[in-house]
Amino acid sequence: MRMNSFGRIFRVNTFGESHGLAVGCVVDGCPAGLKVSEQDIQGELERRRPGQSELTTSRAELDRVRVLSGLYHGRTLGTPIALVVENEDRDSSKYREIGYKPRPGHADLTWKLKFGHVDPRGGGRASARETVGRVAAGAIAKKLLAKYKVCVVAYTKQVGKVESGETLDSSMKGVTDLIESNPVRALDVSAAKAMAEEVVKAKKAGDSVGGVIECVALNVPEGLGEPVFDKLTAELAKAVMSIPGTRGVEFGQGFESVSLLGSQSIDEYFYEAGKVSSKNNYAAGIQGGISNGMPIVLRVAFKPTASISKRQHTVDLNLKKNTYLQVGGRHDPCIVPRAVPVVEAMVNMVLADHMMISGKIPRRI
Amino acid sequence: MRMNSFGRIFRVNTFGESHGLAVGCVVDGCPAGLKVSEQDIQGELERRRPGQSELTTSRAELDRVRVLSGLYHGRTLGTPIALVVENEDRDSSKYREIGYKPRPGHADLTWKLKFGHVDPRGGGRASARETVGRVAAGAIAKKLLAKYKVCVVAYTKQVGKVESGETLDSSMKGVTDLIESNPVRALDVSAAKAMAEEVVKAKKAGDSVGGVIECVALNVPEGLGEPVFDKLTAELAKAVMSIPGTRGVEFGQGFESVSLLGSQSIDEYFYEAGKVSSKNNYAAGIQGGISNGMPIVLRVAFKPTASISKRQHTVDLNLKKNTYLQVGGRHDPCIVPRAVPVVEAMVNMVLADHMMISGKIPRRI
Amino acid sequence: MRMNSFGRIFRVNTFGESHGLAVGCVVDGCPAGLKVSEQDIQGELERRRPGQSELTTSRAELDRVRVLSGLYHGRTLGTPIALVVENEDRDSSKYREIGYKPRPGHADLTWKLKFGHVDPRGGGRASARETVGRVAAGAIAKKLLAKYKVCVVAYTKQVGKVESGETLDSSMKGVTDLIESNPVRALDVSAAKAMAEEVVKAKKAGDSVGGVIECVALNVPEGLGEPVFDKLTAELAKAVMSIPGTRGVEFGQGFESVSLLGSQSIDEYFYEAGKVSSKNNYAAGIQGGISNGMPIVLRVAFKPTASISKRQHTVDLNLKKNTYLQVGGRHDPCIVPRAVPVVEAMVNMVLADHMMISGKIPRRI
Amino acid sequence: MRMNSFGRIFRVNTFGESHGLAVGCVVDGCPAGLKVSEQDIQGELERRRPGQSELTTSRAELDRVRVLSGLYHGRTLGTPIALVVENEDRDSSKYREIGYKPRPGHADLTWKLKFGHVDPRGGGRASARETVGRVAAGAIAKKLLAKYKVCVVAYTKQVGKVESGETLDSSMKGVTDLIESNPVRALDVSAAKAMAEEVVKAKKAGDSVGGVIECVALNVPEGLGEPVFDKLTAELAKAVMSIPGTRGVEFGQGFESVSLLGSQSIDEYFYEAGKVSSKNNYAAGIQGGISNGMPIVLRVAFKPTASISKRQHTVDLNLKKNTYLQVGGRHDPCIVPRAVPVVEAMVNMVLADHMMISGKIPRRI
Repeated sequence: MRMNSFGRIFRVNTFGESHGLAVGCVVDGCPAGLKVSEQDIQGELERRRPGQSELTTSRAELDRVRVLSGLYHGRTLGTPIALVVENEDRDSSKYREIGYKPRPGHADLTWKLKFGHVDPRGGGRASARETVGRVAAGAIAKKLLAKYKVCVVAYTKQVGKVESGETLDSSMKGVTDLIESNPVRALDVSAAKAMAEEVVKAKKAGDSVGGVIECVALNVPEGLGEPVFDKLTAELAKAVMSIPGTRGVEFGQGFESVSLLGSQSIDEYFYEAGKVSSKNNYAAGIQGGISNGMPIVLRVAFKPTASISKRQHTVDLNLKKNTYLQVGGRHDPCIVPRAVPVVEAMVNMVLADHMMISGKIPRRI
Repeated sequence: MRMNSFGRIFRVNTFGESHGLAVGCVVDGCPAGLKVSEQDIQGELERRRPGQSELTTSRAELDRVRVLSGLYHGRTLGTPIALVVENEDRDSSKYREIGYKPRPGHADLTWKLKFGHVDPRGGGRASARETVGRVAAGAIAKKLLAKYKVCVVAYTKQVGKVESGETLDSSMKGVTDLIESNPVRALDVSAAKAMAEEVVKAKKAGDSVGGVIECVALNVPEGLGEPVFDKLTAELAKAVMSIPGTRGVEFGQGFESVSLLGSQSIDEYFYEAGKVSSKNNYAAGIQGGISNGMPIVLRVAFKPTASISKRQHTVDLNLKKNTYLQVGGRHDPCIVPRAVPVVEAMVNMVLADHMMISGKIPRRI
Repeated sequence: MRMNSFGRIFRVNTFGESHGLAVGCVVDGCPAGLKVSEQDIQGELERRRPGQSELTTSRAELDRVRVLSGLYHGRTLGTPIALVVENEDRDSSKYREIGYKPRPGHADLTWKLKFGHVDPRGGGRASARETVGRVAAGAIAKKLLAKYKVCVVAYTKQVGKVESGETLDSSMKGVTDLIESNPVRALDVSAAKAMAEEVVKAKKAGDSVGGVIECVALNVPEGLGEPVFDKLTAELAKAVMSIPGTRGVEFGQGFESVSLLGSQSIDEYFYEAGKVSSKNNYAAGIQGGISNGMPIVLRVAFKPTASISKRQHTVDLNLKKNTYLQVGGRHDPCIVPRAVPVVEAMVNMVLADHMMISGKIPRRI
Repeated sequence: MRMNSFGRIFRVNTFGESHGLAVGCVVDGCPAGLKVSEQDIQGELERRRPGQSELTTSRAELDRVRVLSGLYHGRTLGTPIALVVENEDRDSSKYREIGYKPRPGHADLTWKLKFGHVDPRGGGRASARETVGRVAAGAIAKKLLAKYKVCVVAYTKQVGKVESGETLDSSMKGVTDLIESNPVRALDVSAAKAMAEEVVKAKKAGDSVGGVIECVALNVPEGLGEPVFDKLTAELAKAVMSIPGTRGVEFGQGFESVSLLGSQSIDEYFYEAGKVSSKNNYAAGIQGGISNGMPIVLRVAFKPTASISKRQHTVDLNLKKNTYLQVGGRHDPCIVPRAVPVVEAMVNMVLADHMMISGKIPRRI
């Protein structure tokens, strides 16, 4: 059983409610000897942090991470790394009603049905604030992978109806700066402006909008992924589908492959510089669930955020009658820009884990 | 680590190579006291079996299951249930070349890269024949769920460019017969004919075609799914994405939700006959990763099968040079019709497991 | 893989080095709705805390626990419970040599061989200070079990050559006070004095002494334990043998049963007040790995602590030559009195977990 | 949850009831490329097989193993290895009463309480016949370890009151032949005769007798075992304590260490031929839960077998009254000689698993 933990060897256990004392995680199984600094983790948290632009929630959180264990003289010990981020802006006055008036589109009702006793403040553990722990853990996975040249980059591919055709190419330089240079985190800077407008438009209408994040993993070695149930596609699918707000995932040609012929989607093999290669990478780096050394490409669909300002029908669980709710609190009209580092974190965690499972990364480096 | 096993409490370990002595599985954790007969399992295997129509491979396998343990007087003992299906048609003469000439689009190359020593006969363990074990195990999960009124139905939603708009509605009668009445296993019988033609056309061209399978789970109780990593969406996504040939999965409005507004995708709540309900089930039965009691709807994209008769470029790993391959052997021009029971099996396994994890099904019934 | 985590459903992940910032744990899988206070946890930590008497180390630690998550209005949420104890007395000046002069009898050398990069301060993660996390987690397990009348009591049975014949009987009153009333935590108060003298004598000689802890679990319901590998005996054996300094474990008649005849060790059955019962409980509450409702009795052997003041031979790993070490630092001449709550914690964790695995405790209470 | 499976990477799932169609196992996670023959497995099964001498049960089983998957051209594929042994002598006429008259000292009653529906024939899954699967799996682990020079040898150390002082020394030659040369499998051939007499004496009296098995693992590399819960001692303790009939386990000086002083039980370090070594190996090869390269020594206590011919008190669960039972069926007056290969199998499984967990054995060899 895993519940709040993820991974086999590189294993992460997150904790924390949105308006509790703290959120964080314990990373177990990271090899000994890896150079990691608090700044490595802080840097990733900054990207997820609220209040970065007018497109995101105004909740004021500095999200300062504190490393309680697992590091000594700047290197991992091979022991559990406990990371804690205290919640500072815990004003939950706006959330009082949630305890008995579940917000439509949120997890309030299902959590109540499942657990009975819940923390309504800011959505409690069901809040996307739990992804702080994922991003912190992902930062360590990223650092570990970087030592082996594996590099994971995610970016916004679509916001509402605005789509961008561009996909990351391994030859591109400075992509990270490019992506961080615009508030929606698009790779395609020309589309970024229209995407931002889509968000602003929704926000003004008291509404919200969804989007697609594309994620590319470069320099992944051959042989990751375990037949038959733990295929790399299956593992990645689970990882990203555990992120709040996701509705679908696809690899390479994805749903479009359905209407193609086999001859239009099979990667034929050729020797190229002594290595077996294919021309089109239709398989997006994974064949039969095992990585083949080419870039892995996946896309994740996020629905429009459930927190909208419009008045909505809901029920009063105490009075057992229909009522209305106008959700206050601080929220994002589009979660996609802030979900980009979360997608990266999950993919980094899966790849770090499978690098260790396959023995490509030893227990001590 | 799991590799060839799946599930937490209701746990399945499959085994077997395509042209080895047998394929099968061990089901561990099934409650004691459940009525199961060999025929229950055999019935599901018949649906997956090759040679059912001109749309499928001509490999001759009767797929007779043998129950080695775990049943006594027609009831489960709560001990491991070992299920074995001997491979009868093991003519692998057509597969000799595969050992050094990997078939494009197949897992031959990545398995070779990962394991070094492989069984080339019929693709060995990478063959979709491993799904025999899944279907056998799924039959037991189905029987277990039936006792609790949970019912999972899958059907072909799209083949190639032919799509059907129809989705299973809980009020429908006789759907199983309807689906089994046409060789593509479509719910929409009028579309079924065009779908079949799409397959035949591809087959005649020595090519292949993909498709989409939709799966609906009815009467799933509230409260299944574990935050935060083992959300029901995440678990189901992994389950179906571990099936050979899959390229994507989506829930409810899926990728389409991206271009909708929040107000078009949020399920508002109302009391209906004393129960909290929503009108549209946009969330497709799962909110915040936890089931809400409404029908769960998911769709899985299958790429065109990799086995086509056309001559393809590949490499000779012995001579280390480019060459061609014309794949012999018996294969399906479209895997979708036979994948329908496999999708059902995986969804049944996930739901049975989560029914037990959540305590809705006890260890002894 | 588990490493620093323990349990299946009721699962604990501990973290922290002896002289790092903090030690602690995350408890995942505890049911929602359980009343737990910080004081419940603090109370158990007090029993493990150093500096309780002249028999224990003089390290000054208040061991104040802080609950970062998982509780709301005094009840568990069903979400991870993060517990942190900051290390206050971090004077590690005495431990500098350990980095290259491994202490005989300690884990210094094997950790160095395994991880390469280690934290020598106070033994780092290999210090028995890691058991703070176990005791904190065990306190929650204890609270959970108490709700179901299950009660676990451990006490010192032997110190050095001083053995006590007394075993806890379910009819005894006030046993906890009795045990806590003497510094060795013996049930047999008359033997306690001689035991304490044994410790003092060893301490004065710059030496150390071992002991046996007996642990009794009362009111354990029938049916706990999973055949065939996860027998309750096997699970308990692993749990207690993971405690630092243990050398053996036995159940009921234990090693003595070897020289008995079957007829002297088989519990014959009789009806007693409508329930099947036995007279002698030779099986110590577990038959075929499954609890039978009678008291569970186990004994754990602790070797003499490895930290003695006597000068010892060791090696200098830098200079690669033989040398001597006179261990400074603060340590216990006999770990047994402080290990009593640790044994209880581990047994509580196993029983809580198996109560949940077997469905005797639901996910929400 | 694991129930009938054991191990993390090298993982074994056993199945089968004593008088069902078959017993066996699936070994998952064994590296690809290992040479294994059916004879390697059969050889170990012969040692466990009933009917080897007058000291063991007369049940007639040839225990022929059949390898259903995972091997190709005499080498492992890295895929699951399914091993099946059909039960031939299924005469269960003697066991009819067990269904409602539980045998004292057996698991009949606790299984009934736990599972409700049980297979009474020969004890069903609770019979020690389930160890066939363990021994078959252990044979593969043994083969794998042999490639890395790791060698595990177990032998009978005590039967009833007859104890032998001899312990395996790494310099001994031909120990396996020595052990197999006498029916009790003692290392000490002079003691073997007295041990055999102890068994015969008990048998004649319609009684049974227990014993101690000692197990030594040679050439185990440094660094196996995972802090803090998966210490090598803890893992081995669980492994052997899952064997039917066990009552205790101890390592090295074990329970005797309790009455020693620290200075009598601490291994001081010295350089010996450039390697850090100790003189006495008091720690028995494991320090702080991690192997140090020296021989691992453990002892397992087996109680007298529960099947005795004497008439015993028991209850009639149908009539709900006290009654008597005189157990028929075929059984061993002392299980120890046949348990020797089972102890070896479990230790081999743990070591193979930890060799893989620590990366000492890769996924492909």
